[in-house]
Formats: sequence, C-alpha cells, structure tokens
Amino acid sequence: MLALRRERAPWLLSNDSLGLVALPDTYQSFEKGKEMIRMLYLLVKPEGMSDEQFKRECVRHDEMSHGIPGLLKYEVRLVAEQPTDTHVPFFDIGHVDAIGECWFENEEAYQRYLDSDIRKTWFEHGKTFIGKLKPFRTEAVSSRHGE
Amino acid sequence: MLALRRERAPWLLSNDSLGLVALPDTYQSFEKGKEMIRMLYLLVKPEGMSDEQFKRECVRHDEMSHGIPGLLKYEVRLVAEQPTDTHVPFFDIGHVDAIGECWFENEEAYQRYLDSDIRKTWFEHGKTFIGKLKPFRTEAVSSRHGE
Repeated sequence: MLALRRERAPWLLSNDSLGLVALPDTYQSFEKGKEMIRMLYLLVKPEGMSDEQFKRECVRHDEMSHGIPGLLKYEVRLVAEQPTDTHVPFFDIGHVDAIGECWFENEEAYQRYLDSDIRKTWFEHGKTFIGKLKPFRTEAVSSRHGE
Repeated sequence: MLALRRERAPWLLSNDSLGLVALPDTYQSFEKGKEMIRMLYLLVKPEGMSDEQFKRECVRHDEMSHGIPGLLKYEVRLVAEQPTDTHVPFFDIGHVDAIGECWFENEEAYQRYLDSDIRKTWFEHGKTFIGKLKPFRTEAVSSRHGE
C-alpha cells in the first residue's frame, strides 16, 4: 500500500520546488505505538431550531475552531440519512442532526485545549445550538492503526 | 493553510526520487464541489460477548475490509470512554462499543460495493459480532469542505 514513511510528522514535509505539502489528514501519529486523542460527538439540535439555522451554526462552529490551542483538527458533518434497514438488529437511538470529531496530538495538547479561554468561548457557542450531546473518546482497535 | 492542490487525486501523486507519496487520508475529493460518500456506524456488541472477543472481531473485520470493491477506506475504532459531564444536556443513548466509518469515492463506487459478493461476505461476518447497529450517512456542512 502507498504510504509516506518518515521520521518526522508527515505534514511537516514540504518541497518548495515541487510545490508539494503533505496534509495532516489522518492525524495518526506516525511515531510507532503513539496515537492521536480523538473525541467523537453526536449532536441533536434544540427543539424548534430550523435545519437552516442549525447548519449555519455548525458552519460558524467550524470557523470558530480554527486557532484553538491544542486542537489539531475539528470536523463537523451533517447527518443526511439514517437508514433503518440494517443487516443486524437496528440500534434505535432517535434522531441525530450532526456528528463532530476533535483530534489532539497528545494528552498535553488536550489539556492545553481544555484550559484555553478560546476553547471556553467555543463551548459557549456550542450551548446556543446544541440541544443534546453524546461524546465518545475512541481508540484504535490494534497497534497496527498507529503505524 | 498548508494544502496539496493538484488536478489529480492527491493520493496518486508520487515522486520516486524523494520517496514521497501523499496518502489518501481525508478521502475528500479535491475536485471542487465533489465530496466522498461517508457512512458512519455505531456498533454495540451482542449480550454476553467479552470485550476481548469483540476487539478481535473488530480487528478481523478491519482486515476483511481490504480489497472490497468500491470501498475506498474503512476504519473501526473502539469506544474507550463515554463522558456524561457535558456542557450542554447529555444525550443518553446507552452504551456503544465501537464506531466504524466507510468512505466511497462516488455513487458508482458505492453501488459497486453494495453489489459485491466480497462485501456480502463481510456483512455476514458483521452478523457474528455486531449486536446492534446505527448507521448514518453524513455530508459536509458547507461546500468549503469539498474544496
């Protein structure tokens, strides 16, 4: 499989003559055995909020995420479809409006994020458009994912 | 922001003299306005299955995902923590054991995946270790994400 293998974090690589810069896309550390901290969130909009307003607030929340100390990446996506015709028993949790995910390089970065005033302002914005929230901290199923 | 901008899909780039290959990590199409199809799944293990067996089956499911027609990427991660001390009302959906995600380049690839016998065998394996399943099809909150 194609792979970028370097000692340094791949997104720090650049070659000006080629104009190539590798993006920090998986946010998996390439240091063997070391993995990013990842938090995933299910978001439900408040009762009475229109889809349009919720979407605008998600866009705004995404914009506000830039520059938060310790936060390597934030992504929020709208839920477009919620199929129920599953091949195994359906897990009925009710309606979800969006799914967010946060990436942190390590515990130190995560703590820096938690302590940050910019992060606190970001969470205050969250209170204006998130009716209900379900957080998950996730981890790789095997060390192979950290390689 | 650092970015790789090319006409071609970035993960097809390579430069042997540098030994650099860009990874297909975001699986966002770089063709403007075009976005990957992404499906996210909440997985609950069957009653009575040990965490160890569930983890082994997740690893196996990940291994089986390689080479499935139309499936660009599959990722499954274990749920490590489920915090309840949220800054907005908590969305209590009960216990979740893992979260999976599938990436497809477009509708044609997704259909090829659905029609594939290898995919059907993969789903049969899913029946052996997924007690309950909640699928979501997600989409970008704005076209900026597809750029």
